[in-house]
Amino acid sequence: MKTFLDCIPCFYRQALEAARLAGATEENQKLILDELAAVLPSLPMSSSPPEIAISIYSIVNRVTGKDDPYRELKDRSTDLALKIYGRLKTIVKKSGEPLKTAVRMAILGNIIDYGTQYSFSLEDELENIISFSENSGDGINYAVFDFSDFQQKLEKSKTLLYLADNAGETVFDRILIETIKEIYPGLGVFYAVKEKPVINDAVMADAERAGISVCARILSSGSCAPGTLLSLCSPEFLKIFENADTVISKGQGNFEVLNDAEKAIFFMFKAKCAVVARDIGCDIGDAILFYKQDGGALPPRENEKRR
Amino acid sequence: MKTFLDCIPCFYRQALEAARLAGATEENQKLILDELAAVLPSLPMSSSPPEIAISIYSIVNRVTGKDDPYRELKDRSTDLALKIYGRLKTIVKKSGEPLKTAVRMAILGNIIDYGTQYSFSLEDELENIISFSENSGDGINYAVFDFSDFQQKLEKSKTLLYLADNAGETVFDRILIETIKEIYPGLGVFYAVKEKPVINDAVMADAERAGISVCARILSSGSCAPGTLLSLCSPEFLKIFENADTVISKGQGNFEVLNDAEKAIFFMFKAKCAVVARDIGCDIGDAILFYKQDGGALPPRENEKRR
Repeated sequence: MKTFLDCIPCFYRQALEAARLAGATEENQKLILDELAAVLPSLPMSSSPPEIAISIYSIVNRVTGKDDPYRELKDRSTDLALKIYGRLKTIVKKSGEPLKTAVRMAILGNIIDYGTQYSFSLEDELENIISFSENSGDGINYAVFDFSDFQQKLEKSKTLLYLADNAGETVFDRILIETIKEIYPGLGVFYAVKEKPVINDAVMADAERAGISVCARILSSGSCAPGTLLSLCSPEFLKIFENADTVISKGQGNFEVLNDAEKAIFFMFKAKCAVVARDIGCDIGDAILFYKQDGGALPPRENEKRR
Repeated sequence: MKTFLDCIPCFYRQALEAARLAGATEENQKLILDELAAVLPSLPMSSSPPEIAISIYSIVNRVTGKDDPYRELKDRSTDLALKIYGRLKTIVKKSGEPLKTAVRMAILGNIIDYGTQYSFSLEDELENIISFSENSGDGINYAVFDFSDFQQKLEKSKTLLYLADNAGETVFDRILIETIKEIYPGLGVFYAVKEKPVINDAVMADAERAGISVCARILSSGSCAPGTLLSLCSPEFLKIFENADTVISKGQGNFEVLNDAEKAIFFMFKAKCAVVARDIGCDIGDAILFYKQDGGALPPRENEKRR
């Protein structure tokens, strides 16, 4: 997905948020915004937003002198999610349709995102997820939910590549992977994280902390953008990507960089900005399980809900 | 009020909105954002947001080659508001407290603002105002409503200076001025508009179109900022400003430039952004009638609601 003009004000907002989360002084926050203003006009709008975000977050890291400003926040997200892991597993197990419930839960976990949101109470969000899940529905509108395609694809698959998004969300991913492995025990699962810290995206340490290694082989994609930008990925990752029978892509950032890839991909995320929502044809806040087939078309642009 | 760092992303958003409303091509929209990025870092944060907005809107006007890009929108706003003028007058007359009702209505009219809002349906907003007003309440939270101060001040006044905000809102201002004049027929009323077009702020032609001349003397303040920036005002205006017994200041822009003026002022507006809401200690969307006394203190900053 290319960058839209509406992304530009949002880049400044993200830079300011990131600067604050990185503990920048007010003077440095201003400096970060000014440096962004010096760079942004020359970046091509044909790049995807996560590609442009590399520049934003590298300014934040350089000015604040921190190479992982979200480290504490990421650990906290993972630890809080791990605290409710047992409750979430029980909800999945008790539900009539464990796979469907685990998919929904994994999408709900995509709420743990410090890139797109102004302010955010993780505790409240996790409590919401629990209380939604314990009741019959989850209160979320699934604008696209290609679940039967997902199930059919898994049945025929020997390998699954799961593209991670945020730290903390990783715990929800683990529940989905564990649920999948219970149903398809022979499946080989790869869990790809970012090469270097960017926003609160999961890196190797975050996946380890969430316990992903009990159910999947963790590897770095090689991408340091907040999305699995194939041009930055390692040859090892690209081979796995090309050969994987099923690919799950979590989060809006991965959607933005992979929605026009040739490969068949299941995108799971919550739509968090007007630009992506318009692209998908859904509302902000809607949950998406979208199956993009090999070289396949994008979701409807005419604001038609698919379900 | 100084400019906050949170205003910076919002300036880019405003520039983009203004560029689109001015009918700029996508290429010119990008050019406007790039030119803003070249200028904004050097503008002092000690300036008020409306002062900085002068630069934004002059870029938009220059690139689009239009000196009044909101002309059509302003005419439409005024004409639509005039269509419901009779109904609004009836509501005021039938209410037990015409002055209070007219004040509330004038604040509701401040919703007609194309600077602060992403998207906006004027018809819907006007229908809301009507339906709110026809019922007992208006559904709005009045976080500050210094109405008895306002009434007491008017009783002792010989002159009233009314600082206009947006075109269309002018019709609501007219209803308030007419209501005041019915109660205090001896009062001399001045209605000050902007010197040159900026966003959808009212200029002389907009006040005339709204019929303000039937109840007040219209004059230009001399300011071409989207706020009555005293440093830009004409000597004639400044004399009236200094001598006016009562000053009504409409809109957020006027609040931003006059909240630390020495003069006693009644501010009437809807809080439309997080920065101003925080400054006032109210929520976005709250309505405000705030009496700032001579050289007086600002509203509480501790997020304490006053009423």
